Amino acid sequence: MRKIELYKEHGFKDLTFSNYLVHESEFMKVINFNFRAGQKLPVHSHDLEGELTLTVLEGRGEFLAADGAAMPAEPGDVLVSGIAEPHGVSAITDMRVLVTIAPPI
Amino acid sequence: MRKIELYKEHGFKDLTFSNYLVHESEFMKVINFNFRAGQKLPVHSHDLEGELTLTVLEGRGEFLAADGAAMPAEPGDVLVSGIAEPHGVSAITDMRVLVTIAPPI
Repeated sequence: MRKIELYKEHGFKDLTFSNYLVHESEFMKVINFNFRAGQKLPVHSHDLEGELTLTVLEGRGEFLAADGAAMPAEPGDVLVSGIAEPHGVSAITDMRVLVTIAPPI
Repeated sequence: MRKIELYKEHGFKDLTFSNYLVHESEFMKVINFNFRAGQKLPVHSHDLEGELTLTVLEGRGEFLAADGAAMPAEPGDVLVSGIAEPHGVSAITDMRVLVTIAPPI
């Protein structure tokens, strides 16, 4: 059992979004992505079995998907996606996003 | 791919904490627990392989563990626990917690 205080442990970077490995095990991988306003995780996918969730902790932006699709992303919004489905994030304000991947990749 | 707006989809209950199944698949189970101030998910465990994360989205309380242990739980705090380890939550203010379990139980 381990507690991670994301808002203390992990800040922002000016040059590009900042990623912080929160937890990795045989069961799951948990990563915290922090975005400054305007930063972006481009749409990508991995040809692997499994799913991921993107949870907005703070800030506002868009979830990105295939073919230029975009959905508003606000605190409390959870995007569930196959690892093999194209997904990304674009930040309108500074934004903290928690990503959980199972099984871990 | 599916987006769930937890703050719109899921509210609070006065009688006991409220749980909302966000997502269930062969890879993971995601549940949103909302607690009114003073409500509690008592310490419990399941004798199964796997892990869970408890992420505080809003509000303030305590993560509970074996032998009466308690840790402050605030927005952005993530507790990583074995499914077989005793864990629980106690809310000081109204509190929204996202639980991810892998593999799903």
